[in-house]
Amino acid sequence: MYMEEIKVFCPATIANLNCGFDVLGVCINGIGDEMIFRKTNQKGIKIVKIEGANLPYETHLNVAGVAAQAVYNAINPSFGIEIEIYKKIKAGSGIGSSSASAAGAAFGVNELLGKPFTKKELIGFAIKGEALASGSEHADNVAPCMLGGFTLIRSYNPLDIIEIPAPKSLYAVVLHPHIEIKTADARALLSPNVSLKNAVEQSGNLAGLIAGLYTSDYQLIGRSLIDKLVEPLRKQLIPYFDEVKTGVENAGALGFGISGAGPSMFALCYGEDTANKVNQAMNIVYSNTKISFDVYLSSVNTKGVELL
Amino acid sequence: MYMEEIKVFCPATIANLNCGFDVLGVCINGIGDEMIFRKTNQKGIKIVKIEGANLPYETHLNVAGVAAQAVYNAINPSFGIEIEIYKKIKAGSGIGSSSASAAGAAFGVNELLGKPFTKKELIGFAIKGEALASGSEHADNVAPCMLGGFTLIRSYNPLDIIEIPAPKSLYAVVLHPHIEIKTADARALLSPNVSLKNAVEQSGNLAGLIAGLYTSDYQLIGRSLIDKLVEPLRKQLIPYFDEVKTGVENAGALGFGISGAGPSMFALCYGEDTANKVNQAMNIVYSNTKISFDVYLSSVNTKGVELL
Repeated sequence: MYMEEIKVFCPATIANLNCGFDVLGVCINGIGDEMIFRKTNQKGIKIVKIEGANLPYETHLNVAGVAAQAVYNAINPSFGIEIEIYKKIKAGSGIGSSSASAAGAAFGVNELLGKPFTKKELIGFAIKGEALASGSEHADNVAPCMLGGFTLIRSYNPLDIIEIPAPKSLYAVVLHPHIEIKTADARALLSPNVSLKNAVEQSGNLAGLIAGLYTSDYQLIGRSLIDKLVEPLRKQLIPYFDEVKTGVENAGALGFGISGAGPSMFALCYGEDTANKVNQAMNIVYSNTKISFDVYLSSVNTKGVELL
Repeated sequence: MYMEEIKVFCPATIANLNCGFDVLGVCINGIGDEMIFRKTNQKGIKIVKIEGANLPYETHLNVAGVAAQAVYNAINPSFGIEIEIYKKIKAGSGIGSSSASAAGAAFGVNELLGKPFTKKELIGFAIKGEALASGSEHADNVAPCMLGGFTLIRSYNPLDIIEIPAPKSLYAVVLHPHIEIKTADARALLSPNVSLKNAVEQSGNLAGLIAGLYTSDYQLIGRSLIDKLVEPLRKQLIPYFDEVKTGVENAGALGFGISGAGPSMFALCYGEDTANKVNQAMNIVYSNTKISFDVYLSSVNTKGVELL
């Protein structure tokens, strides 16, 4: 048997995007995992190499393994697949590390199976891997990682994912402070109830953001990037959140907020010049702290998971 | 002085649209008020005729009067304006009766003043008239009445109104049962707090609706026309709500809900054929009740308030 091998890029993603809590995400360039998938004679999914993270090799305990197995089982081919994982996105960074593994694994297995599923269909498999990491089948990172661009999760039951266009001059800048925030802790801070007034304002801002993305109205995008429900509660977990916010707003960012459940923060910007200034502003604030950090500057990744 | 006179059409509107509670509205054809505006030598605004409704003639007690006066005062011209009001939209019907008066008055006065303000600017004046009727400066009927099409109120402070495109084959059918629901009573039924889960689902549906309107994706529009926050509480005020809902869904409507604060109900439909069937379905349900009613079938009115 010819040992076919493919290499896959699994990009990072920003979920929530302020007013899009739990329903919106976007795919970015500049940082992502790599995975290698290889056909073998022995049936089943086997993880044979993991670099860049201390993760379990047992398929059923590994996010990529669970997602890969789900796709594999749906077809039950006569051959096996072994996987090498090269993690670049740090776990717990808030830019979709587990989703990159899950989406990449589902995509890679599907490729070796001869593409029986569309990318959209693969999301349903990938979120089973994501569930291992986050406790529920969240798709707000998985969907943009898989499809690229902005994605809206209108509904989970049934899963209804809508691709939203990304304006060409939109840039994202992500600041990742090297501290750990457990998703469970970030979830526990949320109030189970919110005021109707804030819920209405949040929905109006999300609608404005969607309209801004369809019309490439950067100012509307900026005006809409407000989070009434979550940021006020969660920002306490993120050191120097307000200082970074002030810095990037002064540097001309359209909007700023928490990426996923944090600790990463993100800014959206019009044009690369402003994105560079926002990058500098983030560096200035965090260079004066004792916390090590990374900054990623990126246009929107409109391809999502792809073959290398 | 030449006694210039104009006649204005002030269309009805559907606010809320399920997932768009308090932020979205749409303008319809087929029913609307008419108003006549006439320049006079005597300074000030004077309401000289009201037909079709029992409303006060005192400018400061009349929705149209307040809106007209606000625009008039901003310019303070050397002439006066007298107004005739021909109400066709019944007060308390839930299809923007007071907003039609307010938007029409602001528009008509602005025309006679030589159009110092844009239609969007006039909304800021018209909501002062609307506030006389509803107790607050709501724009979710005023904005679509003024501008036509679908309008999003992203924010009130500052007022930020976004025009959303209307797909060409979208039809609205409105059933107006001749019962009275006081807006205050409809408001009192609302809970001041909602679950975060429902708020997130509502925002996802609104985002889906906006995406569907931009892409003319009628099925997505239909899937998104869900109201998790308000309909479950308010539908009890509307006789035979569930029966009408079942009827119009069986007839092929994309979605169905409460128009404004009720008692009117609306359905959105793809194409006139389906709209006719939905019209019939509404008639069948309400013909078997003792409540008199009207049904209006209409394409989306994309012009808003206009000169006749």
